[in-house]
Amino acid sequence: MAELFTLHHQLDNDCIELAELPLSKLLLMNDSSYPWFILVPKVAGVTEIFHLGWEQQQQLLNESSLISELINQLFQADKINVAALGNVVPQLHVHHIVRYTTDKSWPAPIFGQHAPVPYTEEELSQLKQKLLPALADILPN
Amino acid sequence: MAELFTLHHQLDNDCIELAELPLSKLLLMNDSSYPWFILVPKVAGVTEIFHLGWEQQQQLLNESSLISELINQLFQADKINVAALGNVVPQLHVHHIVRYTTDKSWPAPIFGQHAPVPYTEEELSQLKQKLLPALADILPN
Repeated sequence: MAELFTLHHQLDNDCIELAELPLSKLLLMNDSSYPWFILVPKVAGVTEIFHLGWEQQQQLLNESSLISELINQLFQADKINVAALGNVVPQLHVHHIVRYTTDKSWPAPIFGQHAPVPYTEEELSQLKQKLLPALADILPN
Repeated sequence: MAELFTLHHQLDNDCIELAELPLSKLLLMNDSSYPWFILVPKVAGVTEIFHLGWEQQQQLLNESSLISELINQLFQADKINVAALGNVVPQLHVHHIVRYTTDKSWPAPIFGQHAPVPYTEEELSQLKQKLLPALADILPN
C-alpha cells in the first residue's frame, strides 16, 4: 500500500498520544471523566477490523487485550468497554474505556453522553506516571 | 472449569438464536431497526475478552471478522459497529451492528437510543433465508 498512514485530524485533536505499540498508536482521549484509551493501527486506508490482514488482526487483538488487562488492573475497573465504531471518524480506531458503576454515565455507553472534561496538566502527568512505566514493563522492545 | 455455560437470561429474552459457531453462539437482536448480531462465546464465567485463553481470543476474533465481513456484504453496510460493553449483561458478548448513514440513530451508537422494534415472522424468516445459507457456505463443518 503506497498510501502513508497519518492520524486522523479529529483523533489528533481530541486525544493525547501516549505510546507507540508495534501495530498501533496508543492515544488517551482528553476527557478526564473516564480513563479512556484508543488504539489506532498504523495502517493507511483501513476502516474495519476485517480490512486488516490476518496477522495484523491478531496483533490488534494482542494489543487490545494487553491494554485492556493493564488498564483494568491499574485503574481497578468494574468493567472494560471495548468498541470499534467509526461512524464519525472513519479511520479504524478501537476504544478501551475503564468503567465504574459510579461513573457519570453508568450503565450507558459513554459515547455522546456528556461534554468532555479535559485533563489538567497535573492530572495528565499523574496518569502518564501511572501508565507508561507499567506499559514499558510489558511491551516487547 | 467445572461451571457449565448457559446463555444469560436477558440475551435469551432479547435475542433469537441463529447458529452455533465453533466458539460462540450467533444471536440476532430482536430489533428490526438495524441488522444487529451478537456473538456469545460458550465459555462459562467470562466477562472480558482478555479472560479468554489466547486461542479462544483468536477464535473469537476469527468469528467476529467472519460475521462482520458477511453482514457487511449481505446487508450492504455503510459501517460495521463492533462492541463488547457488558455493563448491563455481564456475560461476555460482542455486538456486530450493520449501520447505514440513513438509519434512525446515525451517527450515534445505537445503544439506548430507541425502543426495539421486534421482527415480524416474515421479516425474521427472510433474514434467516438471507443469512443462514451464506453462513453455512463459509463455516467449517
